[in-house]
Amino acid sequence: MTTTERAAARAGERARQRSQRAVRAAGDPSQLPHLVVQDVRPSTPHGYPAKAMAGEKVPVVASVFRDGHDVLGARAVLSKAGEEACTCDLAPGPDDTWSGAVSAPEPGFYELVIEAWTDRYATWAKKVAVKLAARQDVGIEIAEARALIEEWSRQLPAGDGALEGPVGQALRSLTDETLDDARRLNPALSAPVAHALGGPELARDVTRSVPALVWVERERAGVGAWYELFPRSFGGLRGAAAQIPRLAGLGFDVVYLPPVHPIGHTFRKGRDNALEAVLGDPGSPWAIGSEEGGHTAIHPALGDFDDFDFLVRTAREHGMEVALDYALQCSPDHPWVKEHPEWFFHRPDGSIAYAENPPKKYQDTYPLNFWPAREADRVALWEACREVMYFWADRGVRIFRVDNPHTKPFAFWEWLIGCLRAEQPDVVLLAEAFTRPKVMARLAETGFSQSYTYFTWRVPQYGPEGIRTYVEELAHGPLADYLRPNFWPNTPDILSGPLRGGPPAAFALRYVLAATLSPLYGVYSGYELYENEPASPDNEEYLHSEKYEIKDRDFSRPGNLSPLFSVVNAIRRRHPAFSRLRNITFHGSDNEAMVAFSKRSDDGKDLVLVVVNLDPYATQGATLDLDMTALGAPPGTSLEVHDELSGEVYVWGSRPYVLLNPLQRVAHICDVRWAR
Amino acid sequence: MTTTERAAARAGERARQRSQRAVRAAGDPSQLPHLVVQDVRPSTPHGYPAKAMAGEKVPVVASVFRDGHDVLGARAVLSKAGEEACTCDLAPGPDDTWSGAVSAPEPGFYELVIEAWTDRYATWAKKVAVKLAARQDVGIEIAEARALIEEWSRQLPAGDGALEGPVGQALRSLTDETLDDARRLNPALSAPVAHALGGPELARDVTRSVPALVWVERERAGVGAWYELFPRSFGGLRGAAAQIPRLAGLGFDVVYLPPVHPIGHTFRKGRDNALEAVLGDPGSPWAIGSEEGGHTAIHPALGDFDDFDFLVRTAREHGMEVALDYALQCSPDHPWVKEHPEWFFHRPDGSIAYAENPPKKYQDTYPLNFWPAREADRVALWEACREVMYFWADRGVRIFRVDNPHTKPFAFWEWLIGCLRAEQPDVVLLAEAFTRPKVMARLAETGFSQSYTYFTWRVPQYGPEGIRTYVEELAHGPLADYLRPNFWPNTPDILSGPLRGGPPAAFALRYVLAATLSPLYGVYSGYELYENEPASPDNEEYLHSEKYEIKDRDFSRPGNLSPLFSVVNAIRRRHPAFSRLRNITFHGSDNEAMVAFSKRSDDGKDLVLVVVNLDPYATQGATLDLDMTALGAPPGTSLEVHDELSGEVYVWGSRPYVLLNPLQRVAHICDVRWAR
Repeated sequence: MTTTERAAARAGERARQRSQRAVRAAGDPSQLPHLVVQDVRPSTPHGYPAKAMAGEKVPVVASVFRDGHDVLGARAVLSKAGEEACTCDLAPGPDDTWSGAVSAPEPGFYELVIEAWTDRYATWAKKVAVKLAARQDVGIEIAEARALIEEWSRQLPAGDGALEGPVGQALRSLTDETLDDARRLNPALSAPVAHALGGPELARDVTRSVPALVWVERERAGVGAWYELFPRSFGGLRGAAAQIPRLAGLGFDVVYLPPVHPIGHTFRKGRDNALEAVLGDPGSPWAIGSEEGGHTAIHPALGDFDDFDFLVRTAREHGMEVALDYALQCSPDHPWVKEHPEWFFHRPDGSIAYAENPPKKYQDTYPLNFWPAREADRVALWEACREVMYFWADRGVRIFRVDNPHTKPFAFWEWLIGCLRAEQPDVVLLAEAFTRPKVMARLAETGFSQSYTYFTWRVPQYGPEGIRTYVEELAHGPLADYLRPNFWPNTPDILSGPLRGGPPAAFALRYVLAATLSPLYGVYSGYELYENEPASPDNEEYLHSEKYEIKDRDFSRPGNLSPLFSVVNAIRRRHPAFSRLRNITFHGSDNEAMVAFSKRSDDGKDLVLVVVNLDPYATQGATLDLDMTALGAPPGTSLEVHDELSGEVYVWGSRPYVLLNPLQRVAHICDVRWAR
Repeated sequence: MTTTERAAARAGERARQRSQRAVRAAGDPSQLPHLVVQDVRPSTPHGYPAKAMAGEKVPVVASVFRDGHDVLGARAVLSKAGEEACTCDLAPGPDDTWSGAVSAPEPGFYELVIEAWTDRYATWAKKVAVKLAARQDVGIEIAEARALIEEWSRQLPAGDGALEGPVGQALRSLTDETLDDARRLNPALSAPVAHALGGPELARDVTRSVPALVWVERERAGVGAWYELFPRSFGGLRGAAAQIPRLAGLGFDVVYLPPVHPIGHTFRKGRDNALEAVLGDPGSPWAIGSEEGGHTAIHPALGDFDDFDFLVRTAREHGMEVALDYALQCSPDHPWVKEHPEWFFHRPDGSIAYAENPPKKYQDTYPLNFWPAREADRVALWEACREVMYFWADRGVRIFRVDNPHTKPFAFWEWLIGCLRAEQPDVVLLAEAFTRPKVMARLAETGFSQSYTYFTWRVPQYGPEGIRTYVEELAHGPLADYLRPNFWPNTPDILSGPLRGGPPAAFALRYVLAATLSPLYGVYSGYELYENEPASPDNEEYLHSEKYEIKDRDFSRPGNLSPLFSVVNAIRRRHPAFSRLRNITFHGSDNEAMVAFSKRSDDGKDLVLVVVNLDPYATQGATLDLDMTALGAPPGTSLEVHDELSGEVYVWGSRPYVLLNPLQRVAHICDVRWAR
């Protein structure tokens, strides 16, 4: 049986089981639940685990209902390895939707189950309240309450402890006197009693949702400021290590390095992506492998493993992490080409196929054949790829930026991430896929911790190409449960939108947007120096791209963006509200070029408001329409906004007029308090 | 173990299996599919079977993609009991969405599987085409093609027959001459060859979707004109039978009778829902059961089983069906109350609980307790309820209008419908639930063939309360796969919207809307006589409701709506386009009070266009904005519209001005042809 035949056989078996469902139900209806509990979130569309961070407040939502008009109760139970880790009552809202929030104390796999039941006490109390209001006799309802209490008392487990629990206490609090007076049993008069009696312990029809899986990661999987640099432009790994104190001082959390491996020389690309390199051209780091080694070797020009370890150690000492590139392709000189020709594609003339996107040819790289004809070869290749990641993970690298995951099989990633979760659960993967929406969503679903996004191309406020539209989709749509965006204004491959030939203000405003909209963001070195020359009018690459040459930059140049990095990263750290995405609320603006949004921290205490001028060339003014309800403004108050960029304080009503001259400042980033 | 504990245990087991997925995947990645095939439609949100009618053209949609940029192929396979019943190629569209259509030849359970694969031939051809256009050498691609053909030839099953199939023929057609010239292998030059070589037979990575279940019913489950009448107002079952020739002549397909069982006398309701009946008051037919019998008895005043059989036979002879009411509740005099007190709710004073919606009391009916304490009692009750339906089904009733299904457990319906599908698969159930959206959707998902809807309350064209908004949701949203709306302008319980005190035109326009928007619609007797008096300004019931008294109506009264029934039902039968809902397209109108829509039949040959004035009081005019693409207008043509109500013919461009005086006519119902 082939792979696909086996998969088909399994799918067919699942279908047969499902088609027998009606018949089986007819045979044993007692298997069917009393309530309907469905559409539990967080979840992913195809059954993969949803994502959360340890300590994160995760909104839980489910549809809960049953036949008739009885009052229901529901709660969320989050468990790890069968042990309850967190429970919370759910509250009913419109459209049979119940909601609450849970929080996982530590990383790992959790199961989220929604339990729902008929709250017999509340059902009784509601009936009594209506009857009392209508001055109807409730004698029989009092008798019903007595019978119910008696039934519940019998139900309590035997032993001294039982009566000490909340249910026991609630039952004991119901004296003969209360029981004779329905008014005293009204839940409004005895909320704790009502809560205890209305819980699942005394219910007869507790219905549990199909468990939803949640993969909980450490904070850095979802929050962090990244900085990308090519070590060779800093003199190698020791040079990169020398940058760490500066980067840590600027407030970055992750330093990400393009591949550090030996670079092939066959068909090496020259400067500006020239087809032929000349002497001294360093080549693209993504053309991995030479006689000096492959994916587990270090380019001799960058240093050795001691240097690498020193870099990782230095980063750690400064509270930073090193992220490496995981790029599964080989130069023609990679050792695997000779050792494992069966891992590549072959052409009829006996040559190995280089990468092509006709009519373009990429002769300096060979793609790997992830589905070779022999299953044993597939196993060997996949395990070799996994070993590459484990090799660097064992050297202290716990974050990988995965190059072009959408050109390798989804099955490979599902398998690799399965292995990682079992064996290296703190490893974080960033998916570098700039491709179609469903492909990006599926990679995130498969388990990548973070994803590059379309942020780079989102320029106006509204519309399909708008920032607000896009962020609302990421923050509030189904993706919010499993795709963590990492916003990059630029990458070594992408110089786009207002940055192309753009003024310093363009770099400042795109930076502020990335860093304040998204808990995860990154910039590629040179950004702070306003490097803005595209390779050509219709090419998103940089002119004189660092991918093909060594750069010498002066980061002490006056007027560069580093001070803004420093201030904004400090603000991000001071305000936990910036560590979340789904907490965002956009506010109205009567000027398309001005965007305003607020965020509130999990504990509700921290509230920030950001206003950005999207036009790097001109002063823009807007009357904002602040959603005071979303801001949680106490009645009769105004906003006292403390601009953390300028130090200024303003008092704003719900419709302030805001003016931003991009030559002076591109944004307000404000701490919000309340003024009478 | 209780029911809920068992359910929870099963849910927990499913979760454990899922949480082991990653680990299992790590152990055997060969189980993972090569492509992603997901989001297959038709489907329901929670895994219940989607719905279709025998012979219906059902759109199939799926998301299909894989890593990289190879060309893919996909097809839909519809199977019954493991035998392929229908296959169709899927075509790629935007956003990785592939689509096609299947049709099930006969009723029953079907499995829909989407198969997708890498089309190696098309991938090769695309590469060659681009290279040829760029004048690049394709020598190696020709060699690749030779190798591919050779591989495929080896793959063909041995035997004489193999080479006769389309694949064999395609391979044989590739002569040495063609193989030496890549241009000849271009798919544009040899489409049938490309199709044969690009099919799943030669693919190495065929990936099959999880099978989607489709429950296929006979046409009447989804198409029909219903007429509701109280037999007692026609002298009983023989009197109802005497109406059949008239109703058949008017074009109705189903005659639906409220409960025909004996009516209780304890707390019997009097006229106009009076709490006390007086001598001669017939009582509500929904207060089922007396000393004369329960759900399997006939009210003696209506006739006997011979009369009943005569009615069913008469209907059948006139091409109609009788639908009965299935109302699972009992009057205090129902035999079950004495024989099975354990099937009811009991109060502490020993009495059986009547129905209540505090402060309202419904003392003439006892609700059934579908979850009695003893499992054996539950089994006995549920089986008794099933036997009621089987009893009438065995007497030739194959359609039931189910009273208030949302006040009985979902589990009961799931079980009952499971039994029916296995044992009485041609029985059709209409869910009479006017309740919250998720509850209505879930009942439809559970398996009701048809559903009452909010149509009755949808009056303007647009907005949350608008007809267009609502029909588009039903026709094009997820509900379209499993909820079949049955549009009723009125019912014995509901006199609403423009019908309340409304003029004849209100009745005409609401009727035309119901009958032309929805393949299923119904009216309740008296509608044609413009009965329009509500019980009170804030009560949706009829004044002098037929539920509590016998009516004597004169259906021969001049000016009544019967001729319109006759004409519209004839138009519906003449135009298969009216037998579908998802084929609807709304067209623009610059007047909120004028709505225009078109429908096209499955075979594409029949096209109808309907324009309705929604204002029963005033002439309204509108410039329509017809979607000529959706109409499939050949370039340069106008519409030749034949109004089948008036017999007039108009020639319309894409923006005709239409004027409708409701005193003369409320609508155009047009057959569309094309005029040069």
